[in-house]
Amino acid sequence: MIKKITFIGSGSWGSALANVLSSNNHKVTLWGIDKSEIEDINSGINSKYFGNKKFDNEKNIKATIDLSEALSDFDYLVLSVPSAAILPVLKQIKEIIKDKKIKLINVAKGIESKSKKFFSNVLKDEFGDNIENYCTIIGPSFATEVFDKCLTMVNIVGPNKKFLREVSSVFNNDYFRTITNIDEKGSELFAAIKNVLAIGIGIISSIYTSENTQAALLAIGIKEIHNVYKRIEPKGRDNLGFELAGVGDIFLTCSSPKSRNFKFGQDIAELGFKEAFEKNLKTVEGYFAAKILEEIIHDLQIDVPFLKSIIDVMYHDKKVENLLDFISSYK
Amino acid sequence: MIKKITFIGSGSWGSALANVLSSNNHKVTLWGIDKSEIEDINSGINSKYFGNKKFDNEKNIKATIDLSEALSDFDYLVLSVPSAAILPVLKQIKEIIKDKKIKLINVAKGIESKSKKFFSNVLKDEFGDNIENYCTIIGPSFATEVFDKCLTMVNIVGPNKKFLREVSSVFNNDYFRTITNIDEKGSELFAAIKNVLAIGIGIISSIYTSENTQAALLAIGIKEIHNVYKRIEPKGRDNLGFELAGVGDIFLTCSSPKSRNFKFGQDIAELGFKEAFEKNLKTVEGYFAAKILEEIIHDLQIDVPFLKSIIDVMYHDKKVENLLDFISSYK
Repeated sequence: MIKKITFIGSGSWGSALANVLSSNNHKVTLWGIDKSEIEDINSGINSKYFGNKKFDNEKNIKATIDLSEALSDFDYLVLSVPSAAILPVLKQIKEIIKDKKIKLINVAKGIESKSKKFFSNVLKDEFGDNIENYCTIIGPSFATEVFDKCLTMVNIVGPNKKFLREVSSVFNNDYFRTITNIDEKGSELFAAIKNVLAIGIGIISSIYTSENTQAALLAIGIKEIHNVYKRIEPKGRDNLGFELAGVGDIFLTCSSPKSRNFKFGQDIAELGFKEAFEKNLKTVEGYFAAKILEEIIHDLQIDVPFLKSIIDVMYHDKKVENLLDFISSYK
Repeated sequence: MIKKITFIGSGSWGSALANVLSSNNHKVTLWGIDKSEIEDINSGINSKYFGNKKFDNEKNIKATIDLSEALSDFDYLVLSVPSAAILPVLKQIKEIIKDKKIKLINVAKGIESKSKKFFSNVLKDEFGDNIENYCTIIGPSFATEVFDKCLTMVNIVGPNKKFLREVSSVFNNDYFRTITNIDEKGSELFAAIKNVLAIGIGIISSIYTSENTQAALLAIGIKEIHNVYKRIEPKGRDNLGFELAGVGDIFLTCSSPKSRNFKFGQDIAELGFKEAFEKNLKTVEGYFAAKILEEIIHDLQIDVPFLKSIIDVMYHDKKVENLLDFISSYK
């Protein structure tokens, strides 16, 4: 059945997912604030991210800067704005839809930087009255590759299995597969902390050329993230880390310069923290996640020496050459 | 304290570990069957694997083709022969040392191809009377990088924690770190099956250029290996897969053409199975592990569609183009 889906946010990830839905012959509306990007999309491309490659079945896709228009008629609302924009945007949406109940698909991941809450909690707290059902999409997925129809598999997480299956059937096709996973909080935790790890692995990849070194630190980092998760959620699934939203996402984020946090780490090693920070300020979620992580590991007294060391490079003037000092006493 | 260590096997991994011990000022004897390699080592290099790079503190290292000489005086015996050679070599050793008890360090990993047993079991069954203590070293480690003194971290596994700490203190230095882990059977299982996965990821890396695809299938593969492990060892550690011998080794083996099994997978995709097999016959442990894995998943009825699909390519004429057919019904 053809569905109507409105995207809040017309950036790379929103556009890539809109393209998936258009491939599946659904009707998509993208709302954005950048007029030229909106015109671009209405001409069948999003040149900022995907050059002159056309949207699939472009007749299914329209874009607008008018939020009321975007919200006038939809089956699902997809939240695909950058994390910093999420609170003000939710407020705007609320003013328009009033007390209407909606089906929400969140594709912003991790931790909201102002409130320091997981996005799923932000949504419940700020928008709960309007939510009929919701889910989050998390997994190893560079937007450009999704736009290019490369086989991509992600987790779809949320509290209601039936809703997850419903949304899956809207998104799934032969190149985009959503796999249901009901551990929402844990998946968000992995998604958030993996960005901190990616910064650390990025630093290492610039200092050491060794594949042995990178593989070892990646394993140590994954184990530490698992330990944080198990301390926060003692009854959580022991194998959550093996999901697409776990090692899948970690592997992608920590092994490619296409990953912004990994690139930020490389820049830190090459330019020093200050210059790297100014260059990457807008895009590095890992920097903000690190601050929140520091509070968590301090409050719960969790022993995660590698993650702590990455935090210290960003917040406590630790030199990158000393990033791996902890290894001499690692057991 | 200076120790005397004899290596059975003078190949790349044995030579690289001998170099670690020589760095630490221990006395090393390498036994091998290739006369020119032995002469090479006695001149301070192992040119077949490491070009003209000198061993560290070369005065600490000598090599011989005389097994009796190699076994005349040592504190530890390191088994570093290829898996196919392990049974005949153990027999030869037994003839010389008779009923002497020794401390054994095994660095051959996985499954012995003839008996289809884990190496630790082969050692116990064939050599148990001679073993005072033993351990296995497993983890992400290309030999050339260890020889080049790149920071490398591996697990040291075995039943006796005190012995693991003792061996650790012989090996550990600022570039080679052994981390103790007492789940021996599980670690061997991961080490063996990861080679099957590496063949699959190698095939995928040749067919798909997408990083999304590789990250997803790597996660699916790790989860399947974890599932096999938990079916074989229901009381096994839920977080074993996060160890160096788990994701660490998997990550390295599945992401670099330096890995023989990964390269074999690439060759299968590019040359077809037959030609690839002839080209790689001697070195691909994953091919033999796959046969054993097939029996395990059949006997225990374990649902691991990706691993099964990799097995089918090697043993049941499945076309590489159909390797990922299982995804259309993956949940």
